[in-house]
Amino acid sequence: MSLIVQKFGGSSVKDAEHVMNVARVVTDTYKKGNSVVVVVSAQGDTTDDLIEKAAEINGDSLASKREMDMLLASGEQISISLLAMAIQKLGYPAVSLLGWQAGFKTTSSHTWARIRKVDTSRIKQELDQKKIVVVAGFQGLSRYDDITTLGRGGSDTSAVAIAAAMHADLCQIYTDVEGVYTADPRKIKGAIKLNEISYDEMLELATLGAQVLNNRSVEMAKKYNIELEVLSSLTQKPGTIVKERPKMEKMLISGVAKDTNVARISVTCIPDKPGLAFKMFSKLSARDINVDIILQSIGRDGTKDITFTVPKDKGAEALQIIEKFANDNGTGAVHYDDKIAKISIVGAGMETHAGVASTMFEALYNRQINIQMISTSEIKVSVLIDKRDADLAVEAIHDKFFPDND
Amino acid sequence: MSLIVQKFGGSSVKDAEHVMNVARVVTDTYKKGNSVVVVVSAQGDTTDDLIEKAAEINGDSLASKREMDMLLASGEQISISLLAMAIQKLGYPAVSLLGWQAGFKTTSSHTWARIRKVDTSRIKQELDQKKIVVVAGFQGLSRYDDITTLGRGGSDTSAVAIAAAMHADLCQIYTDVEGVYTADPRKIKGAIKLNEISYDEMLELATLGAQVLNNRSVEMAKKYNIELEVLSSLTQKPGTIVKERPKMEKMLISGVAKDTNVARISVTCIPDKPGLAFKMFSKLSARDINVDIILQSIGRDGTKDITFTVPKDKGAEALQIIEKFANDNGTGAVHYDDKIAKISIVGAGMETHAGVASTMFEALYNRQINIQMISTSEIKVSVLIDKRDADLAVEAIHDKFFPDND
Repeated sequence: MSLIVQKFGGSSVKDAEHVMNVARVVTDTYKKGNSVVVVVSAQGDTTDDLIEKAAEINGDSLASKREMDMLLASGEQISISLLAMAIQKLGYPAVSLLGWQAGFKTTSSHTWARIRKVDTSRIKQELDQKKIVVVAGFQGLSRYDDITTLGRGGSDTSAVAIAAAMHADLCQIYTDVEGVYTADPRKIKGAIKLNEISYDEMLELATLGAQVLNNRSVEMAKKYNIELEVLSSLTQKPGTIVKERPKMEKMLISGVAKDTNVARISVTCIPDKPGLAFKMFSKLSARDINVDIILQSIGRDGTKDITFTVPKDKGAEALQIIEKFANDNGTGAVHYDDKIAKISIVGAGMETHAGVASTMFEALYNRQINIQMISTSEIKVSVLIDKRDADLAVEAIHDKFFPDND
Repeated sequence: MSLIVQKFGGSSVKDAEHVMNVARVVTDTYKKGNSVVVVVSAQGDTTDDLIEKAAEINGDSLASKREMDMLLASGEQISISLLAMAIQKLGYPAVSLLGWQAGFKTTSSHTWARIRKVDTSRIKQELDQKKIVVVAGFQGLSRYDDITTLGRGGSDTSAVAIAAAMHADLCQIYTDVEGVYTADPRKIKGAIKLNEISYDEMLELATLGAQVLNNRSVEMAKKYNIELEVLSSLTQKPGTIVKERPKMEKMLISGVAKDTNVARISVTCIPDKPGLAFKMFSKLSARDINVDIILQSIGRDGTKDITFTVPKDKGAEALQIIEKFANDNGTGAVHYDDKIAKISIVGAGMETHAGVASTMFEALYNRQINIQMISTSEIKVSVLIDKRDADLAVEAIHDKFFPDND
C-alpha cells in the first residue's frame, strides 16, 4: 500500500462532469489499496470571477491583499466540497479540508505567502479512518490566523508540501497535457513527450514559462526528493516522471520554453558607489519581486547602466520602486519594456556538449530574429527577444534540435 | 460612544452597488464615533447557486451535510471580503472575519448547528485598533474543527450572539422592509408599521412565518435583553424596536402572519402504551425537527390518533422517521399533507381581551375558509387552513382587526 498525493488544477474540476471524472481517477487509485490525498484548485473561471467582483468594488485602486486572500480562498472551498461529494456519490468515504484545517502554516505575505510548515495531524487522522482526503490547494493560515494564498501555481506547491511532510511515495500532478514536452505541443507539431526529466531541468522549464509545473513546487520536490509525475486527468496515460536521476534519453536538450511574463527595466548612469546595486535589488526583493536576467555595463563618467528583467505582472510595481530609487540616488533615465519574450533551451546534456548555445543562436539568426539579452547556466540558455517573434523562435529552435519530429 | 452590531441580509449585498450602499450605512454609523461590528449573509443568489452546484453532483441522493456546510460557508466568505474592501474604498479601516475567526463555537449538527459560545477576543482586538469588523454570519466551527452553518436565518442569530457576547448597545437588523408590520406590507395595503414590539410578540411573529426576523435570534435577544431594531438598508428611516417592554400602542393585536412552510403528519391508531408518543416525538427532535401544533384524540379500541405539524422543508425527513416508527410499533396509517398554511394573530393585548379568537374565526367564516386545526397561547392564535386560502385569510383577518387602514 502506498501513499499517493494527487493534484488537479482548475480546468480539471471546471464543472460537475469534470469533478465526477476526477472522482473516478481518485477512487481508481484508492481501490488499488492506496491511501490518497487529493489537492484541488478553484474551479475553472472561479478565480477570475472573484477578481472581477473585487474590481467592481475597487475600481482602479488596489484592494487590500488580506481581503483579496479572504475572497480568493473561497474558490477552493467550493471545489473541495464538490469533489468530496462526488467521491461519496461513487460510494467511497471522503472528507474535504481547507488549507488551515490541513495544517498549512504560511508566512504573512498576503497573495504571495510561503509555506512555513504543514502540520499533518488532521490529514493523518482522516487517512487512518480510511477516508480519501480532499485538500484545498493554494491557501494557508498566517500566524495571525489570517487566510493567506500562495500565489500563482500555489496548488502544485501545496501538493508537493503534503507529499514531503507525509513522506508520500508519489506526487501526481494532473493537468491538461499528457506530460512534459520538448516544446508546447499545442504549438509545435514535432514536440516530443519526455518519459523522465531531472528536477533541475524541470526547474528551468518551470521557471522559464513552460507552465506545466510551478517552480516553487519543483524546488520543494527536489529538496525533499519527492518523485513527481505530470500526467493528464483525461487520458490517464503514463506521464512524465520528474526525479533526481532520470534515465538519460540521449537528448542534448530536454525542451524549448517560452515566457512572455517578462518585463525589462534599464537604469542608466548609476553612480558607481559600493552597495548601490545591492540596495536597488533588495528593494525589489523586499516586495517579493524576483529579478531574473541581470546585465551590468560600465557607462560613462564613473557610472554604470543596469538592465534586468522581472515578471511582467510585477512590472508596474517594480517600475514604481525603481523610479523612486532612481530619483533618490540621482541616476539617469529609467526605461521600461514589456513587449518582450524570453526563449530558453534546457537540458542536462548541454553540460558536456559544447556548441549548444551557438546552435540556438544560429537557429534565431536564420530567421532574422534579433537577440536583446543573453543569460546562461550549466543546463540552460535564455535569450530575450521581441515578443512578436516568440512563437517563430520556439519553432526555429525546436526544429534545429529535434529535426526528425516535424 | 456606543457599540453597535449591524446585520445585512443577502439582498442588501447582492451586487457591487448594494455592497457600496451597505458600506455607506456602516461608515455613517462609524463616523458618529461608534464601534461597529457588521454581520453579513452571502450575496443574493449565491447560496442558491451553490446548492445547484451540489445538486449537479449529487442528483437525487442527499449530499453529506458536513460537505454542504463546507460548500455554503464559502458564500459569506465572498460577501465579507467584498464589504471590507468597500469600506476601505470609502477610506475607513476594516477587517473581515470568518465565523471561526470571529470565535463562533457551535454544536456539530451540520446545516443546523447551534451556537455554543462566541469567543470575542479577535473581534475586540480588531475594534481596539479602531477597525470596522465585518463578520461572516450563518457559520461557525464545531469542536472537531469542522465548518458548520446555523440553518435558515442564521445570520440574524450570529448578529444577536455577537451583540450579547459583547454587551452591545444596539443590534440593528437591516432588511428590505422598513420594520415590523401588522401584516406583510407587500400584500396587505393597510398594513401598519409598528414603532415598538415586545420580544414575545416578535417571537410569535418570527416563528409564524412573518420572516422579518429569525426566531432563534429573537429568543437570544430576549434572553440577553438585547435591544433590536429592524430597519431598511435603503431608506435608513427609523424602523421597529424590539424590546422587553414596548410603549403600548393600544392595539389588540400586533400582527397577522402567514406561514406556508408547514406540513401536517397524522398517525392513526397508536397503541395506548405509556411513553409511546414521547418516543415518537423524541425521534424527531433527535434529528432537529421541530414539532409545532399537536392534536391528540382518542381513537377506537384503546388506541389514539396524533396529528402534528413540522416545517415543510423537513417534511420528507419527518415522514420517513414516522413511517418507520409506525411500522415498528404497529400503528395505523400515516397521512401527510403539505398543501396547508398556518395563519396566526399575535398580540400582547389579547391576554386581557376576551373574544380575540372568535373575531378571527368570524373573519375566516365570512370568507368561507375552513379551519383544519387550532392552536392558542397567551399572545397568539394560530389556525391551519388550505394553502390556497392563505392570502385571502390574512387579508380578511387584517381587515377585521385594522378596519381603518385600507
